[in-house]
Amino acid sequence: MVTDRKDILALDYGGTKLSAALCGYGRKEWKARERCFSQKGASAHNNQEVMLQMAHRLVESSGADLAAVGISFGGPVHFPTGMIRLSHHVPGWEDIPLRDELAEEFGVPAVVDNDANVAAFGEWSRGAGQYSSSMLYMTISTGIGGGWVLGGQIFRGADGMAGEIGHTIVNPGGAVCSCGKKGCLEAESCGPAIARKALARLTREPDASPILLEKAEGDPAGITAAMIAEAAEENDELSILLLREAASYVGSGLAMAINLINPERIVLGGGVSKSGGVFWKTLQQTTEYFILPQMQADIRPAALGDDAPLWGAVAMAEKLLSQ
Amino acid sequence: MVTDRKDILALDYGGTKLSAALCGYGRKEWKARERCFSQKGASAHNNQEVMLQMAHRLVESSGADLAAVGISFGGPVHFPTGMIRLSHHVPGWEDIPLRDELAEEFGVPAVVDNDANVAAFGEWSRGAGQYSSSMLYMTISTGIGGGWVLGGQIFRGADGMAGEIGHTIVNPGGAVCSCGKKGCLEAESCGPAIARKALARLTREPDASPILLEKAEGDPAGITAAMIAEAAEENDELSILLLREAASYVGSGLAMAINLINPERIVLGGGVSKSGGVFWKTLQQTTEYFILPQMQADIRPAALGDDAPLWGAVAMAEKLLSQ
Repeated sequence: MVTDRKDILALDYGGTKLSAALCGYGRKEWKARERCFSQKGASAHNNQEVMLQMAHRLVESSGADLAAVGISFGGPVHFPTGMIRLSHHVPGWEDIPLRDELAEEFGVPAVVDNDANVAAFGEWSRGAGQYSSSMLYMTISTGIGGGWVLGGQIFRGADGMAGEIGHTIVNPGGAVCSCGKKGCLEAESCGPAIARKALARLTREPDASPILLEKAEGDPAGITAAMIAEAAEENDELSILLLREAASYVGSGLAMAINLINPERIVLGGGVSKSGGVFWKTLQQTTEYFILPQMQADIRPAALGDDAPLWGAVAMAEKLLSQ
Repeated sequence: MVTDRKDILALDYGGTKLSAALCGYGRKEWKARERCFSQKGASAHNNQEVMLQMAHRLVESSGADLAAVGISFGGPVHFPTGMIRLSHHVPGWEDIPLRDELAEEFGVPAVVDNDANVAAFGEWSRGAGQYSSSMLYMTISTGIGGGWVLGGQIFRGADGMAGEIGHTIVNPGGAVCSCGKKGCLEAESCGPAIARKALARLTREPDASPILLEKAEGDPAGITAAMIAEAAEENDELSILLLREAASYVGSGLAMAINLINPERIVLGGGVSKSGGVFWKTLQQTTEYFILPQMQADIRPAALGDDAPLWGAVAMAEKLLSQ
């Protein structure tokens, strides 16, 4: 049965790395995969050259019989046309018809969407969102993004922008966000936001956390959210406080999403979601406090890690073939 | 063509009144309709007796050839089974299998949902939400409720509770809500909330609005949101201020819903939505301020008024028949 199925090529154009992988239709393990880190200062053209070399090498070396290409892109995509709007990380991606370029390159149908939607679909099809009728995927790392899978389909909204949970206002008048508003969830709870609050506190009060300072080799500006999570595990008071604050904003934002859409499941990914027990307990409690009593909050850690966009790309390509 | 179509019976179990109406399949005008106000202290049993008499009278007097019954109910409904969970207004509705009772009573298929969902579906099928691929309906009156129509279907969520935009926290630590939390949109911007703020201000400062006091015949406790809307049209400063505050919370709550779901259209109904130019201008401006620049906010006044639940009941019954 398996051998007469065709293969899917999955491509992930991430902020810091490019990944390509091959998978048999409907399978849950990779046939082959490769990745490489994006060079600093690389252009869209460089990136595309590297990605195509990698992809062709994979296809040829494994004798793949391609059926479709699925693509995850780190930036806004106009889904109906498969055009890239822009990259958050690499210049020169504006208005590139990536879907059609790859379809022509490999002679098979292709599909592309932004990484939050694709990762959401990956977690839904093969990860922590499996078998849920409605799911919100949320990723907390250098930013906060999200994607919806409703009724087995990515829900994109009218302008392809659905899922922007990072811009829910959780603290009116609070921290300034990259979007220009104040108190967005992203501005309060993403990794750099947590690190920034540690820096502010240690600048005012240098003795507030010897553990954190040691991890950052004495330079509070070098503190990261990952160090804060480590220090919290070692019972560092400041770190526990900072994680509780960040997690309660996450819980408050999640609760608003739950009150609005009442999804069956929430899947939480990204580096900050791995901040340990204090973070999870606080976010669970805050979410449950703010949702209506008739609703449930089934919040689970993402299962696919960095592979979520690749698996989502596979699932999108499978969906394309089954239509 | 029309005469060989069958008829839909639409029933609306509202808080203060019971309505029944008849409509030909796919038609946009009523064949016949009747309503009566619910008696104070009435039980579920009384209400049902009155409703059935009204409905049978309508069907018999117009010689209707019933195809289905659609029902809007003012309280939570378990949609899959058609059971009433409870009424917000009338005791004794707990666990009544309303859908099956009416299907048996009239010998045709029936469908029931809560009034916010049904009104949303009414506005989508025959009102201000027509032809939109995704729509949020929001009603602002004695409470704040909402419902989603996504891809031509009512989106109910995992527990049938989707659409609770009234419990979006727009003012953390603010006014106490009926749900027990503080600063919910409902607690800040529903009709009684606006009236309560007028009362508080006039208690502190009896000269703050002679116009409002006159409308309430000298008793600030008698002020209603409708009086405040009237006074604002007459340039009463306090009333303008109160409407601006309420509308900016509405805009802030709507913006969070738009950032999350990016619906093509928002339809705003309920008495408070008729508060005039100051209210609408402020809510439009606030919504546009808080949404991401790539998104649009197409906010329109509801078109069906009090008939939205009846028309939604018709549309649900039509959907049931076409499945």
